[in-house]
Amino acid sequence: MTRPQASATPCPVMRTVDLVGDRWTLLILRDAFDGPRRFGQFQRSLGIAKNILSDRLAGLVAAGILRTEPAADTTAYLAYTLTEKGRDLFDVVIALRQWGERHAFAPGEEYRPLIDQTTGDPLQRLAYTRPDGSPVRPDETAVGEPRLIGAVAL
Amino acid sequence: MTRPQASATPCPVMRTVDLVGDRWTLLILRDAFDGPRRFGQFQRSLGIAKNILSDRLAGLVAAGILRTEPAADTTAYLAYTLTEKGRDLFDVVIALRQWGERHAFAPGEEYRPLIDQTTGDPLQRLAYTRPDGSPVRPDETAVGEPRLIGAVAL
Repeated sequence: MTRPQASATPCPVMRTVDLVGDRWTLLILRDAFDGPRRFGQFQRSLGIAKNILSDRLAGLVAAGILRTEPAADTTAYLAYTLTEKGRDLFDVVIALRQWGERHAFAPGEEYRPLIDQTTGDPLQRLAYTRPDGSPVRPDETAVGEPRLIGAVAL
Repeated sequence: MTRPQASATPCPVMRTVDLVGDRWTLLILRDAFDGPRRFGQFQRSLGIAKNILSDRLAGLVAAGILRTEPAADTTAYLAYTLTEKGRDLFDVVIALRQWGERHAFAPGEEYRPLIDQTTGDPLQRLAYTRPDGSPVRPDETAVGEPRLIGAVAL
């Protein structure tokens, strides 16, 4: 795999997909949201070949999504942890997770839910809302003409 | 690429990633949200090899995310259109798009925003909220013990 990098496209979807739109990369991000992880922990969780894991981790560090820090256990190992930019991918992981809960299981199958730590219960379905609280439907949106980043509040 | 299919894992993130966690698949979905698309339209938009496009479209149809219908122009062509299950991936595409707007452009760069058709303005940043309207932060969540699908309201 060539090192991922954001292309010159003016499409924000494609730029993000160029950085994280890969099966292993998305699963590494999922694990990283559980807290700092060492190389071997990713490897055991994912059953991934070392060279592929090494490649994907290097790509995420180069993109500023993960950074390395000394592992908490005072061994010589490094831990990979999400940067602020990486933590901001939470919506992507939630969106993948909740679609899976709705559409990729049969009734009665077991799944591992995301828990709301304030209540201990599985998170109810989350909804995207505008700043004014109204929900957004796909058919209410369209791709517009190119604009300058920074020209509007995002 | 082997035909994607949901694995037996109890992790909803992995099941979704197994179906759509691929660069081309995610870009096909992006285009499909603009309305029914013919094979050639995907090909021109994405600059993708015919055999790869054919493989990814077949996978999305097999997964029940896209379906084919006669093209609106009364030619013999088929159009690929999102099913309800496919339209429910809107959150995934929005999450990828808005992360890209925040993190994958330099100030002053041009981008193509998603427009709110009710106002004509670019969509402001969308936030995930619980049914009661409160926002959800990553550090408020954890992966819980396996549960049965259907045992709780999703």
